[in-house]
Amino acid sequence: MTNQPCPPEALQDLRRSIDNIDAALVAMLAERFRCTKAVGALKALYKLPPADPARETQQIARLRQLAEDAHLDPDFAEKFLNFIIHEVIRHHEAIALESASPASSTP
Amino acid sequence: MTNQPCPPEALQDLRRSIDNIDAALVAMLAERFRCTKAVGALKALYKLPPADPARETQQIARLRQLAEDAHLDPDFAEKFLNFIIHEVIRHHEAIALESASPASSTP
Repeated sequence: MTNQPCPPEALQDLRRSIDNIDAALVAMLAERFRCTKAVGALKALYKLPPADPARETQQIARLRQLAEDAHLDPDFAEKFLNFIIHEVIRHHEAIALESASPASSTP
Repeated sequence: MTNQPCPPEALQDLRRSIDNIDAALVAMLAERFRCTKAVGALKALYKLPPADPARETQQIARLRQLAEDAHLDPDFAEKFLNFIIHEVIRHHEAIALESASPASSTP
């Protein structure tokens, strides 16, 4: 175990990378929700349903392939997408509800 | 509604952005798991516990702040981090189990 950094030092180094990646993930997620909020507003305007199973099937297949290419567990990538889509649909439903009752805050 | 793109066109445009962001998210997640697998190997080598509640508390506080700065729901950011940490701990436990029984595959 000579020349091996002590665990706190090596751990600290890896954790700095993880913290940078997490900042990037948060920024990407924020931008993704900006897009999906715009999608939600469009869907509400054109009375389209919040969920779109055909699109979701395509997204899942694509993400699984991207995950495989990046040596990420495809099952985890699918769970991750479902986790996000669940939140997106919650937003879309809220937007649709708001636009359906614009006077709800003025009784 | 003049000068407003028809919904399929505007939707397509937003979905192209979402697909690009998803590719970036998958790449970032793959890199994050590369880091956390290295952390897991270090922890197994030095017999450190898979979970680290003090580190997780710090990460959650930091992510919530980053989320607020990016106008992302901090509660969602926290749920997201917990979702990932859950997967990471699963990996660490598997690594610890493997290194505890190196001959398990050779009966």
